[in-house]
Amino acid sequence: MRTKLGIIAGGGAVPGQLIQAARSQGRDCFVLAIKNSADPESLVGVDHTWLRLGQAGKAFELLHEKNVGEVVMAGPVRRPTLSEMRPDWRTARFFARIGMKALGDDGLLSAVIGEFESEGFKVLGAHEVLGDLLAPLGVWGAVKPDAQAESDIARGIAVAQGLGALDVGQSVVVQQGIVLGVEAVEGTDALLERASGLRRAGPGGVLVKLCKPGQDKRVDLPTIGPDTVRKAHAAGLRGVAVEAGAAIVVDLDRLVQEADRAGLFVTGITP
Amino acid sequence: MRTKLGIIAGGGAVPGQLIQAARSQGRDCFVLAIKNSADPESLVGVDHTWLRLGQAGKAFELLHEKNVGEVVMAGPVRRPTLSEMRPDWRTARFFARIGMKALGDDGLLSAVIGEFESEGFKVLGAHEVLGDLLAPLGVWGAVKPDAQAESDIARGIAVAQGLGALDVGQSVVVQQGIVLGVEAVEGTDALLERASGLRRAGPGGVLVKLCKPGQDKRVDLPTIGPDTVRKAHAAGLRGVAVEAGAAIVVDLDRLVQEADRAGLFVTGITP
Repeated sequence: MRTKLGIIAGGGAVPGQLIQAARSQGRDCFVLAIKNSADPESLVGVDHTWLRLGQAGKAFELLHEKNVGEVVMAGPVRRPTLSEMRPDWRTARFFARIGMKALGDDGLLSAVIGEFESEGFKVLGAHEVLGDLLAPLGVWGAVKPDAQAESDIARGIAVAQGLGALDVGQSVVVQQGIVLGVEAVEGTDALLERASGLRRAGPGGVLVKLCKPGQDKRVDLPTIGPDTVRKAHAAGLRGVAVEAGAAIVVDLDRLVQEADRAGLFVTGITP
Repeated sequence: MRTKLGIIAGGGAVPGQLIQAARSQGRDCFVLAIKNSADPESLVGVDHTWLRLGQAGKAFELLHEKNVGEVVMAGPVRRPTLSEMRPDWRTARFFARIGMKALGDDGLLSAVIGEFESEGFKVLGAHEVLGDLLAPLGVWGAVKPDAQAESDIARGIAVAQGLGALDVGQSVVVQQGIVLGVEAVEGTDALLERASGLRRAGPGGVLVKLCKPGQDKRVDLPTIGPDTVRKAHAAGLRGVAVEAGAAIVVDLDRLVQEADRAGLFVTGITP
């Protein structure tokens, strides 16, 4: 029998999917829900506790108490500065050791994983629990990217990889060779809203969303769902390209329905 | 006697400064004002013609007719896609030759410079006409960056250089190690407005604005002025760092006054 699964729940739909997946596998789980990020509805009927990000001491205490053996983290969390975090002693010790100043998200998350491991937990990627919800390779729906879109995807890949190598963001919007926007902490939704106001005439752009090069695949995987497709359509884009085998897909069937209806392509690519 | 100076005028205050500089040097000039970008007020009393971006044929014809020998381009221009540009024959030939799909701003502007040179014009950088208006090295006003700000500047330099190498943008906002935003086509003002909503508690961030590595220094130099300082202050930032010897400074005296009054540092850096 497998040990209890600890789910560190940030925002979005993936934590809820992890809870469902654990249930359908008959596996016990315990959820640490991050305040102001996790979705309360996904926690109904599940053993859980709400915590602030700065309460690492309390978090480890609870996970040990609940006999959790493996943990999985999912969902975006608004990253606070050290000064607004009000860290407990355990959290402060962690930051004192790693330093915080120049760490990007990726560097920080790698350090967090190391911290869980040093406490004896095994850290799983969301994809290891969800399995079949990783982005498939190739075109998913009825619409295919044309030559202009392929060219925009290629430019988007180059920019997203460069941006990811700097540990800044995962998403880029490109229209006819023009980079309309690149993502930092604002998130993909805000990027899409901004791109809407920056669009040019003629064939619409594409959203390209990739893992950062060298990113630990156990945390912060790029995620898309029906909502991403809807927002891309509203922004005047013609399609979405995500990293196959690495991006998490929320509700693939509905996503493809939305895309087909809106006339958008969605494709899984290998950069 | 020097030949007549052709000024290709985009938006912002620099084209007007070029006109003033030419006047004060007793030099004849002729202005090609880009529609929807150039400031009409700066053109009062100056020989000028309004043109769309796609009218390269007309532009060269006029410049030859006016006996222009040297040209200088300045001020941001909203970059259109090929389909909204309605190019004349000369412009279409240019794009047919260079291809447009995957060109960033930098690649495109280098090609444009080549085009002017092939027509027999010498292309000057705005700094060659303005001379003393390039950003000086070191702290400009009364406020100095502290250790946290220096650390944010260092991270901003790394990200801006990476972004610039991809030929995407020149500006980055960093707060306590967190990259709040990176600039693409939206421009620095829009980046600062966005950063305002993304700011974290604690010490405010910094704006870092650099030339792209390998950028042709004759076009699209990063520019700051009193307005940049005001908007940085409104966004909750604590200071601005620009590339010394490369960024153009509009109204240095007033900029320093604004910065001192607002308690912001402004510093010229060598990346």
